[in-house]
Amino acid sequence: MNTINIQKFDMQKIEQMILTLGAIGAHSGTGVWRTAFSAEWVAAQECIAEWSRDAGLDVRFDAAGNLWARMDGTEGGKAIVSGSHIDSQCPGGRYDGALGVLSALVAITALKDAYGSPRKPLELVSFCEEEGSRFPNAGFWGSRAVVGKINLQDCNKITDASGENIGAVMKAAGFDPGCISEAERKDIAAFIELHIEQGPILEDAELPIAVVSGITHIRQTKVTLTGDSNHAGAFPMDIRRDPMAGFAEVVTTVINHAQKLGRPAVTTVGKCISDPNGAAIIPRSVTFTIDARHPDPASATLLYKTHEKMLVEIAARRNLTLETQVQIDLPACLSDPSLVDAIDLSARAAGVKTMKMASGAGHDAQQMATICPIAMIFVRSEGGRSHTPEEFSAIEDIVAGVTVLAGTLYNLAY
Amino acid sequence: MNTINIQKFDMQKIEQMILTLGAIGAHSGTGVWRTAFSAEWVAAQECIAEWSRDAGLDVRFDAAGNLWARMDGTEGGKAIVSGSHIDSQCPGGRYDGALGVLSALVAITALKDAYGSPRKPLELVSFCEEEGSRFPNAGFWGSRAVVGKINLQDCNKITDASGENIGAVMKAAGFDPGCISEAERKDIAAFIELHIEQGPILEDAELPIAVVSGITHIRQTKVTLTGDSNHAGAFPMDIRRDPMAGFAEVVTTVINHAQKLGRPAVTTVGKCISDPNGAAIIPRSVTFTIDARHPDPASATLLYKTHEKMLVEIAARRNLTLETQVQIDLPACLSDPSLVDAIDLSARAAGVKTMKMASGAGHDAQQMATICPIAMIFVRSEGGRSHTPEEFSAIEDIVAGVTVLAGTLYNLAY
Repeated sequence: MNTINIQKFDMQKIEQMILTLGAIGAHSGTGVWRTAFSAEWVAAQECIAEWSRDAGLDVRFDAAGNLWARMDGTEGGKAIVSGSHIDSQCPGGRYDGALGVLSALVAITALKDAYGSPRKPLELVSFCEEEGSRFPNAGFWGSRAVVGKINLQDCNKITDASGENIGAVMKAAGFDPGCISEAERKDIAAFIELHIEQGPILEDAELPIAVVSGITHIRQTKVTLTGDSNHAGAFPMDIRRDPMAGFAEVVTTVINHAQKLGRPAVTTVGKCISDPNGAAIIPRSVTFTIDARHPDPASATLLYKTHEKMLVEIAARRNLTLETQVQIDLPACLSDPSLVDAIDLSARAAGVKTMKMASGAGHDAQQMATICPIAMIFVRSEGGRSHTPEEFSAIEDIVAGVTVLAGTLYNLAY
Repeated sequence: MNTINIQKFDMQKIEQMILTLGAIGAHSGTGVWRTAFSAEWVAAQECIAEWSRDAGLDVRFDAAGNLWARMDGTEGGKAIVSGSHIDSQCPGGRYDGALGVLSALVAITALKDAYGSPRKPLELVSFCEEEGSRFPNAGFWGSRAVVGKINLQDCNKITDASGENIGAVMKAAGFDPGCISEAERKDIAAFIELHIEQGPILEDAELPIAVVSGITHIRQTKVTLTGDSNHAGAFPMDIRRDPMAGFAEVVTTVINHAQKLGRPAVTTVGKCISDPNGAAIIPRSVTFTIDARHPDPASATLLYKTHEKMLVEIAARRNLTLETQVQIDLPACLSDPSLVDAIDLSARAAGVKTMKMASGAGHDAQQMATICPIAMIFVRSEGGRSHTPEEFSAIEDIVAGVTVLAGTLYNLAY
C-alpha cells in the first residue's frame, strides 16, 4: 500500500486552520461558543465550505444543515465519508468535532493532490448540531437526518431555551425544514470519524491515537424525588420526608456501583436542581440526572436495571415520590471489523503506535452506524479535558491522526 | 390577677383582620408576597397603622421602617413591647409574622378597652424585613436597627437580587437611611413575641400554644467543593475528582449525624448548585448550604465543630478543594425566666394548656434579647407547615394565643 506522508500537509497549515476556525465564535480565551444555526456557526460552516472549494471539492449543504464536500470516484458507487461537527458546547473548545472536520478536509485534499481522483467517491461532512447545546432534544441532528430519523414534525416541536423552534431557526439560516427528508443518504459505503479522545486514557498510555472498538451505550435518566418542604429549624429530623437526603443516597449508591464495576463502566450525576433551593427550607423536591454508560450491551442492560432497583428501593424506604424519565438512550455500537483493520493497517504503515479503546462519549458515528459500517480514530487530549475552552491536542498527535486517517481513506477509496 | 376573656375580642373580627391583611400582596391563593419596602409591604404597614390609630394608639414609623403603636403608661418608664413582622417569604403564608403583629394589636386594644391606661407604656411593633427574603443579607433588619446593629454603611452596601441597595429602596419608601441610628431603643423593659410554631410539635402534642424556652443557635454555612470537570463518558471513575460524589457524602453524613443526635438537633441542606450543571459533564464544583441548629449552646458548638471535621476529612480523602463561609450565625438565646413565668401564669388563669419548647426558627426576639428580657408564645401550625401559602392556624388556637398574650401584657404593664 501507499502511505501518505503527513509532513507534506504542512503542520503549520493545520495549526493555522485550527486557529482560524477557532476565531469564529471565539469565547473564554481558547474556547468557542458556536451553537447550531447561530451566526458564528453559519460563518464557521462557510469557512469550511470555502476551504473545500479552494481544494477543488464539490460543496453543498443539505436541508438539515450538514455541509458536504465531495470528490467523485472514477468507478462511482457508494461514498467513503469522513468528518464530524463544528457546533460546540457553551462554551466548548477548539477541538471537539472541529478537529474531525479539519482532518477530513486535510486528508482528502492531500489524497487529491497526491493521487488525483479516487475509485470510489470520497466525501467530507460537517454535521449540524451534534452537541444538542442549543436544542437539548436535537443532539445528533444532522447525522440523524442523514440516517432518516428526523421529520418535519421534529422541526416544528423542538425548541431552544428562548422558545424558538428549530424549524424557524433553520429557515432563518437558509435551510428548508420541509425538505428535511432529502438529507437522508443511502449511498454511503463507510464512515470514518476522527475525534479527540475527551478522556485521559491515551495520555496515560503515552500514545498519540487510538482505534475505537465501539461506542458506549449512553442512557441519561432524569429523576425527581419529592418529599415535604418544611422549615429547616422547626421541623424535627425524625419526621422529615427530605428529598435531599434521598438524592444524596442515590448519588453515592450509583457512583459507588460504577466504581465497583470498574472500567469501562461510568456513572455521572452532573445536574441537580433543588426546589425551592432555599438555605432554610427542607426541599420539596430534588431533580437530577443520572448518566450511565457501558459499551458492552449486556453489561449496560444490567447496569440500567440495577439503577432502577436502587432508585425504587431508596425512594420507598425514605417515603419519597419517585419519577423517572429516560431522556437519552443511545445503544452501544461496535466499529466495523474491516474498517478497524483498515485503520490498523494504515497506522502500522505510517509507524504510528495505537491502542484499542471504547468511546465513552456519543458521536455522529453512532447514528451513521445504522446505515453503514463505521469506525473512529481518537487523538490524545491533554489532561483528558473536553467540553471546555481548555481542550488541547498537540499538533504532533493531530498529524499522527490525520496521517492514519488519510492512509485509511486511501485504503478504502483508491 | 385579672384575666382577659378573649371572646370579647370577637373571633370573627380577628379572622377578618387576618383575611384583610392577607389580601394585601395576596399570592398563590392563600399566600402573600410582601417583601420589605415593596408597595404591598408599605400598604400592609399602613393598614396596621390605620387599625392602631382607630384603636387610639400613638403611631409612628422609625427610620429603619419599623412601625410602632404606643399607649403611654401612667407611671412612665421603660415599655412593654409585643409584635413581630409582616414581611413574607416569596411567597409565604398569611400567618408567619403577621399573626404576632395582629395579636399584639388585638391584645393591646382589648386591654385598653377593658382597663384603660397601663402603669407602664405598652407598645406594638411591626418589624421590617425579618425574613431577609428581599435582601438576603438584611434578615432581622428592623429588630437589628432597634438593638443598634445597623449603620449607614449597611444601607449603602446591602443589595437585593436586582442590585438595588436597601438605602435607596428605604428612601423611595419614605425612610431616611441617614437617621437609621435613631431607630435604636434603650427604653424597652420586655419583648413578648407571639408567632406560629412553624413545626409539628404542638400538633403532635394536641396543644394550642407553647411557651418558648429559648431560641436555637442557627448557623448557615456556604460550602463549595471543587474538583475537575470532565466528560461524563470519556473519563474513568477511578481517576475522577468528582465534587458531586463528595457533596453527596457530606449531605448523608451531616443529616445522619443530626438524626443520631435526635431532637432538638436539626441539619438541613436546602440549597445546592452544580457548576456547570450539565447532564453529561462531571461538575467542576458543587456549592451548597448546611443549616445546622441546636438550642443548647454547648451542643451547638460541638455540632459545628463536628461538621467542620467531617467536611475537612471528606474533602481531603476525595482530593477536593474545600471552601466554607459562615453566612448566618445567630447564637442561641434563652427566654427570660420571669417572662416565661408571666406567660405560664396567664395561661393557667385562662385555662389554656401549654407546653415548653425551644424555637428551631430564628425570630426578632433573638435580636431583642440583646437589649431586654424576651419570651415567646407559639401557636399551633396545621401540619407544621410554614414559609408556604399553605400555612394555617385554627382560629381557636389563635384566640388561645391572644388570650394568653393579653393576660401576660396585663401582668407586666398594669
